[in-house]
Amino acid sequence: MEIAKPKGFEYAVVKAGIKYPLRYDMALIYSKKPAHAAGVFTTNRIKAAPVKLCMKRIKTGIAQAIIANSGNANACTGKKGFQDALEITNKVGELLGINKELVLPLSTGVIGMPMPMEKILPAINELVKNLGKTEPIQVAEAIMTTDTFPKIVAKQIEAENTVITMLGLCKGAGMICPNMATMLAVLLTDAWIDTTLLQEALRLAVSESFNSITVDGDMSTNDTVLIFANGASGAPKIDRKSKLWKSFRNLLNEICLELAQMIVKDGEGATKFITINVEGAKNSSDAKRVAKTVANSSLVKTAFYGEDPNWGRIIAAVGYSGVPLQEEKIDIYINGICLFEKGLPTMKEDELKDSLKQKEIDVLINLNLGKSRARVYTSDLTEEYVKINSAYRT
Amino acid sequence: MEIAKPKGFEYAVVKAGIKYPLRYDMALIYSKKPAHAAGVFTTNRIKAAPVKLCMKRIKTGIAQAIIANSGNANACTGKKGFQDALEITNKVGELLGINKELVLPLSTGVIGMPMPMEKILPAINELVKNLGKTEPIQVAEAIMTTDTFPKIVAKQIEAENTVITMLGLCKGAGMICPNMATMLAVLLTDAWIDTTLLQEALRLAVSESFNSITVDGDMSTNDTVLIFANGASGAPKIDRKSKLWKSFRNLLNEICLELAQMIVKDGEGATKFITINVEGAKNSSDAKRVAKTVANSSLVKTAFYGEDPNWGRIIAAVGYSGVPLQEEKIDIYINGICLFEKGLPTMKEDELKDSLKQKEIDVLINLNLGKSRARVYTSDLTEEYVKINSAYRT
Repeated sequence: MEIAKPKGFEYAVVKAGIKYPLRYDMALIYSKKPAHAAGVFTTNRIKAAPVKLCMKRIKTGIAQAIIANSGNANACTGKKGFQDALEITNKVGELLGINKELVLPLSTGVIGMPMPMEKILPAINELVKNLGKTEPIQVAEAIMTTDTFPKIVAKQIEAENTVITMLGLCKGAGMICPNMATMLAVLLTDAWIDTTLLQEALRLAVSESFNSITVDGDMSTNDTVLIFANGASGAPKIDRKSKLWKSFRNLLNEICLELAQMIVKDGEGATKFITINVEGAKNSSDAKRVAKTVANSSLVKTAFYGEDPNWGRIIAAVGYSGVPLQEEKIDIYINGICLFEKGLPTMKEDELKDSLKQKEIDVLINLNLGKSRARVYTSDLTEEYVKINSAYRT
Repeated sequence: MEIAKPKGFEYAVVKAGIKYPLRYDMALIYSKKPAHAAGVFTTNRIKAAPVKLCMKRIKTGIAQAIIANSGNANACTGKKGFQDALEITNKVGELLGINKELVLPLSTGVIGMPMPMEKILPAINELVKNLGKTEPIQVAEAIMTTDTFPKIVAKQIEAENTVITMLGLCKGAGMICPNMATMLAVLLTDAWIDTTLLQEALRLAVSESFNSITVDGDMSTNDTVLIFANGASGAPKIDRKSKLWKSFRNLLNEICLELAQMIVKDGEGATKFITINVEGAKNSSDAKRVAKTVANSSLVKTAFYGEDPNWGRIIAAVGYSGVPLQEEKIDIYINGICLFEKGLPTMKEDELKDSLKQKEIDVLINLNLGKSRARVYTSDLTEEYVKINSAYRT
């Protein structure tokens, strides 16, 4: 499948042998001109070295290259880990002939192991040499850990006789929770837009996408979403007053949402894609809290795996979310069938038997207390999840 | 096994056929004299009818009988459910010839189904007729749901030439979380103690036991812990100044802790009993929050199932607990081996290989920020858990 590519970016991948010898495990993304850049990072109080370095460097609002690796998260590696991240980005900057401060590192994989610098540093030579010979999908492959497929999407919008392209790629699977656990995402666009607007658009898009998904409620030390906008499309500058501002945000929202949904669909051992809608909440934080609590309930997730229309586990999770509610006002729908109405069961479970066999499940909880709503995406909890996570050494 | 029994209590069980025809599913506990009584209840905002009725009646501080059933939780059953709970306790009071306000109901089982009153009401006749013909262990059996064994313990203390006996029984398994999910516990003692002191002792004991365990992080609509003290031992009254006050609290703490540990050991599909100790926290709420977050992490729980000394998942959970911390101060021990010291891995995983095969796992997290500590008990997460919970209709 040929995917649209934003202008002015080049890619390279290499088999550095960080954890496994036979797969791509390092990638380089390079913008020919410095790009406006923004980022959103894990809220985990334990942050990996590359996250700390990214957060520091992104403050300038300008970046030009991303050096990514899988197999080692460079987390809980102390001062040495931070030095390693610096050395990696320094070398990339040197070989590319750009300011090293414009190079951002991304890492995912095992926690607490020193970075195998003897493998990584030589691989950087190869990456820089190979620049431009690689398709973006190979970058998505190089950052996979327990992912079962690479995650990539691109879309275009028109802008006064030119085309703006945005490409998104990410890795997820396992440890995915609202607030982006063990998740790396990169968004590349040839739009021309200031850093302030870019950061604002990214924050909103992440909130409705990567921060609205959950696989197991865990949250990692490495989660990072980066966006580069290099202006290479030749399209006019996007400012807050331009029509393009709205279509750019829509473009970004759609790409982030599609990537986030791919992560849930690839949730470890997942067989179902479950959307939890909450309506009628007093405010949006209540709505999101209820949605997340239900989405994170192991009992709800195992029930859907068992194709059991178990609204009882849903109402129990609603109840312990801590959000004020009135039992006698609550309605619960699964796949459009009302199973619980004004605090009482409708006994319509039989009408659901077939539709629960589908891969996509839609839950709607109406608190009937206000007008706020939220939507969270999750997967079921399966024996396969347990098998993967008891065998896989993070 | 003969178990010590507090004086002045009688028991009965019956096969009412509420959900399954061939098992005891209703129990009656009767104190020959009205007892001082106290209770601790679920914090879930959705509360089952029997919980609401118990909470109302316990306010008097006096009670004399407990009518319990499994197979139906009488939760999410609206006004009809509350009427049913009233009718059940009314009939018990009538047949026992006591004030119906002194009868407390307990229910566990399926949510949202109407109580099968046509089976329950006749069974009450039989229960009252059978009073005194049953051992307490059969009461523990009658309240089981997915439990694989009945949970009961009794202990005695001496009090000026007399003996005070306390018996505890409970049901747990599945949906067990700090704050007592789908958990019923009854404590019976022949001590003589006022309701105020009884409530105080119970609250403390529950906090360190039933509220310090977690199986899957879910919390039910029915959780209840009740204690009856009928004074039948003939021992002197326990007041705050008496030496007995301390030994009574120890007795209650020990019994609650043993019962809570039994619940974790019987966690659905559990193969490991895991103790999470947190030390060096700034305050006890920080300590408990860290301990609970780690204990509820699906990734930590699957790692222990896989006998993987994965301190990386532990430190990630510590980080997303939201408690302020300093990475470079944190130590993590598993089974006494330090795997993470002052923010850096020690690479001693190999020393743990054998000890992780044990059934009991001990985790110690020292934040090195203060003097507060907490301890939470949990189980591993296994394929069997998923199997049970995807097949069992709560």
